[in-house]
Amino acid sequence: MSTAGESGKGVGGLSTAKRRPGRRPGSADTRGEIIIAARKIFSEKGFDKATIRGIAREAGVDPALVHHYFDTKDGIFVAALQLPVEPAKVVPLILAGPREEVGERLVRFVLTMTADPEAREPVIALMRSAMTNEQVVVMIREFLTAAVLNRVVEALGIPPVNMEVAFAQVFGVILMRYVLRLEPLASIEVEELVQIVAPTIQRYLGGD
Amino acid sequence: MSTAGESGKGVGGLSTAKRRPGRRPGSADTRGEIIIAARKIFSEKGFDKATIRGIAREAGVDPALVHHYFDTKDGIFVAALQLPVEPAKVVPLILAGPREEVGERLVRFVLTMTADPEAREPVIALMRSAMTNEQVVVMIREFLTAAVLNRVVEALGIPPVNMEVAFAQVFGVILMRYVLRLEPLASIEVEELVQIVAPTIQRYLGGD
Repeated sequence: MSTAGESGKGVGGLSTAKRRPGRRPGSADTRGEIIIAARKIFSEKGFDKATIRGIAREAGVDPALVHHYFDTKDGIFVAALQLPVEPAKVVPLILAGPREEVGERLVRFVLTMTADPEAREPVIALMRSAMTNEQVVVMIREFLTAAVLNRVVEALGIPPVNMEVAFAQVFGVILMRYVLRLEPLASIEVEELVQIVAPTIQRYLGGD
Repeated sequence: MSTAGESGKGVGGLSTAKRRPGRRPGSADTRGEIIIAARKIFSEKGFDKATIRGIAREAGVDPALVHHYFDTKDGIFVAALQLPVEPAKVVPLILAGPREEVGERLVRFVLTMTADPEAREPVIALMRSAMTNEQVVVMIREFLTAAVLNRVVEALGIPPVNMEVAFAQVFGVILMRYVLRLEPLASIEVEELVQIVAPTIQRYLGGD
């Protein structure tokens, strides 16, 4: 899917090239510059209205270089916000397999992933920002809708509100387990929790 | 749901009596002084270790006066954090009635209550504080467990984790409806949402 010229290969190394104004070729900190630019653009415009071209302009680089490093707008967003997974890659894996087990696959994936603090912390940090910053709310809502919720809704042919309520259940469990740390929820094994929550998600997504 | 003793009526009026050091009788701002003291004590000690005596000492008043205004420790907590309901009064109402409809009663109550911005905002403000302040986390967790979750768990004889996951579902829906404002979840009628979410809560609380 990469549209970038592979000619940029190797430029992201350990060179200590200094910043220069204007368009830069792939200097050592180009990837970092693009990420800083992306955070600004996503925050100002939200996810839907942000473009790779606009991010490239902000970073002072060629759009092809942004494609080279991040492939898609989803990819830049995930990198800029340090999200643990790229939905475009993960959602199809969760949806593959028997429809009657989709709830279990989804819950097991999310709970296993968030059991790792390094995967979980950026997600919680983002929710923390959303609680106090309306720009972050818009950015998250648009990304979540376009990159996660709509993909599942379309693939499974379910009402959008069902997917939103399923998301609310899974996200609520993560908040209560890792932020409020209610016991026994905070200490229970992932697999035991999967058995409790999966039937709920299956009911919302199963399409019965 | 007023939390103050109704006998305190009139005392909290518009008088501009100045603060005085030391123990005060029921002056115009005594109730306010107790609330300020309660916020400090709950924040420092959490809910479980806070006492009416300690709050009274902090406020420089007699403990009987704290009882007079707020009745119980639950009552002071609800008033200090401007919570919309006092769980000791609401939980029994939700639990009364047919067991096979407890999920529907609970979801309808919470969604109806939080449809009112004045009831909802203090709850969201508290969650906002919890996301960034560990003292608030402890305070909320202890109050929620003692005043809400344990009451339901004991009355219904269900595993505590079931109630925690049910709470996660309902709270998650409120977050997605009013903070992230996902559509169509943010605009759907309360009664339609009750029909979608109630079977989930019934499965967790039904004890089948």
